[in-house]
Amino acid sequence: MCPASPSDKTNRGFIIPIGGGEDRVKEMQIHRRFVELSGGPDAFIVVIPTASMLDTTGEEYDRIFSGLGAGHVAVMPISRRTDCDNPEFARLLDKATGIFITGGNQLRLSAILGGTPLVTQIRRRNASGVPVAGTSAGASIMSEHMVAGGQGNEAPAEGAVALAPGIGLTNAVIIDQHFTQRNRLGRLLTASSFNPFLIGLGIDEDTAAFIGPDDVLEVIGSGTVTLVDASQMTHSSMWDAKPGEALTLLGLRLDVLGEGCRYDLKARIAYPPDDHPALCTLPIAET
Amino acid sequence: MCPASPSDKTNRGFIIPIGGGEDRVKEMQIHRRFVELSGGPDAFIVVIPTASMLDTTGEEYDRIFSGLGAGHVAVMPISRRTDCDNPEFARLLDKATGIFITGGNQLRLSAILGGTPLVTQIRRRNASGVPVAGTSAGASIMSEHMVAGGQGNEAPAEGAVALAPGIGLTNAVIIDQHFTQRNRLGRLLTASSFNPFLIGLGIDEDTAAFIGPDDVLEVIGSGTVTLVDASQMTHSSMWDAKPGEALTLLGLRLDVLGEGCRYDLKARIAYPPDDHPALCTLPIAET
Repeated sequence: MCPASPSDKTNRGFIIPIGGGEDRVKEMQIHRRFVELSGGPDAFIVVIPTASMLDTTGEEYDRIFSGLGAGHVAVMPISRRTDCDNPEFARLLDKATGIFITGGNQLRLSAILGGTPLVTQIRRRNASGVPVAGTSAGASIMSEHMVAGGQGNEAPAEGAVALAPGIGLTNAVIIDQHFTQRNRLGRLLTASSFNPFLIGLGIDEDTAAFIGPDDVLEVIGSGTVTLVDASQMTHSSMWDAKPGEALTLLGLRLDVLGEGCRYDLKARIAYPPDDHPALCTLPIAET
Repeated sequence: MCPASPSDKTNRGFIIPIGGGEDRVKEMQIHRRFVELSGGPDAFIVVIPTASMLDTTGEEYDRIFSGLGAGHVAVMPISRRTDCDNPEFARLLDKATGIFITGGNQLRLSAILGGTPLVTQIRRRNASGVPVAGTSAGASIMSEHMVAGGQGNEAPAEGAVALAPGIGLTNAVIIDQHFTQRNRLGRLLTASSFNPFLIGLGIDEDTAAFIGPDDVLEVIGSGTVTLVDASQMTHSSMWDAKPGEALTLLGLRLDVLGEGCRYDLKARIAYPPDDHPALCTLPIAET
């Protein structure tokens, strides 16, 4: 499944995976930027709290985005597959200028939303310019190939990571979150090495990758985004490793990006702050 | 301080950092190989248990190495600086065909042994062909620049690692141990980025890097050895990062080596198993 195709006249909306645990009380620069990209006072933000088991999660984001000046916020309380048939939700997504997917369990997200018309609609809205942000599980779900589970605190190993299909807003990257905090390098390296066309994107807590319509991402937040590029790998033992055996992966490129850095996902080039053309200023969603 | 110079006729002995937690009851392949390199039935192995606060540590290694066929094992119970003046210990080191430094606290090791004639003797013995192995703290102490402390579970940051001088058997690498298990990539990246001439060597538990006289290391054990090569780094924010601020480090090379892999520390090239000339077979110590 490829990302839905933008029409000729619009650019894809930002894709904004957040590593979880982002600041929700102080500067809130990640949420603030998302609200701005969604249109600020003209924004119509739709929150999908499905990954979470808490009833209050949607309300909390309503409060945050409204407090940051979003014109309108709507929560879609989807907790089972039949909820996805609610025509009211389809109408909300049609109006959306920004979509936010909360944290929780990404398999709950993919199992409940996967294959429903709502996902098709989210993909189309993003393709037509609407930014989609997600935190923690909501970040993982965004890519075509999703990290569904696996061990932290382990070296790369054949069984270290479990993949599942995500909603496919991008197929350039595979995303892991709470990256440094939960010691997930091993499982991200494993995921990247399954097929090195995938760039591994390890996002720390309180940190986000704002992936622009031009497939250049910018880092915002207090932590780092780690990019694993296995495309120049000279040797991998992946294909014949025994279960649980430590993997050999030679010739990986690693870029650790702090705030303000950018990374061109097409060219696989990292840029330090202030060393790249101005932020992508392509027009956002037309509603 | 450079490593002591080998004489014209002998080659430096192996330097064998072990990541801690190595198998001491089953195959014991790391200890077994060390005993073989030390001469097997002709070996005279000296154990330095100084890093440990446990009285039984030395005896335990005596039992292990003797059980693996070492001809003779002697423990040097050094627990304070004045112990280093004991002429008996100097005589033991003169006879040694293998030296083993136990785990514990590497600052205890450097604070008690540092600057004493015993360290000079260990360096000379290694330069003249005697293998020196060390586990955990005993691995860290081996390099010229030693990781003395710092945080696991954190992204690279200016204050993430504290360095101190080690005993300088090699100045090609900086060593970290319990690497994957304690999530120490951030602090190793930080250490490597202070001055990218240093290759970061992150060694997992139950895993060892056998660094041969030719500066080619071979991995033995159940985990991995992670090599961080920052020499081609295109950007580092190290020099102007604020305390605790996440670092940007672009263009790092990462090699994850499983058992049997080799890495040429001079050429900075990784080799998969079975893709490199035979194991270094240079003669070991003449006693």
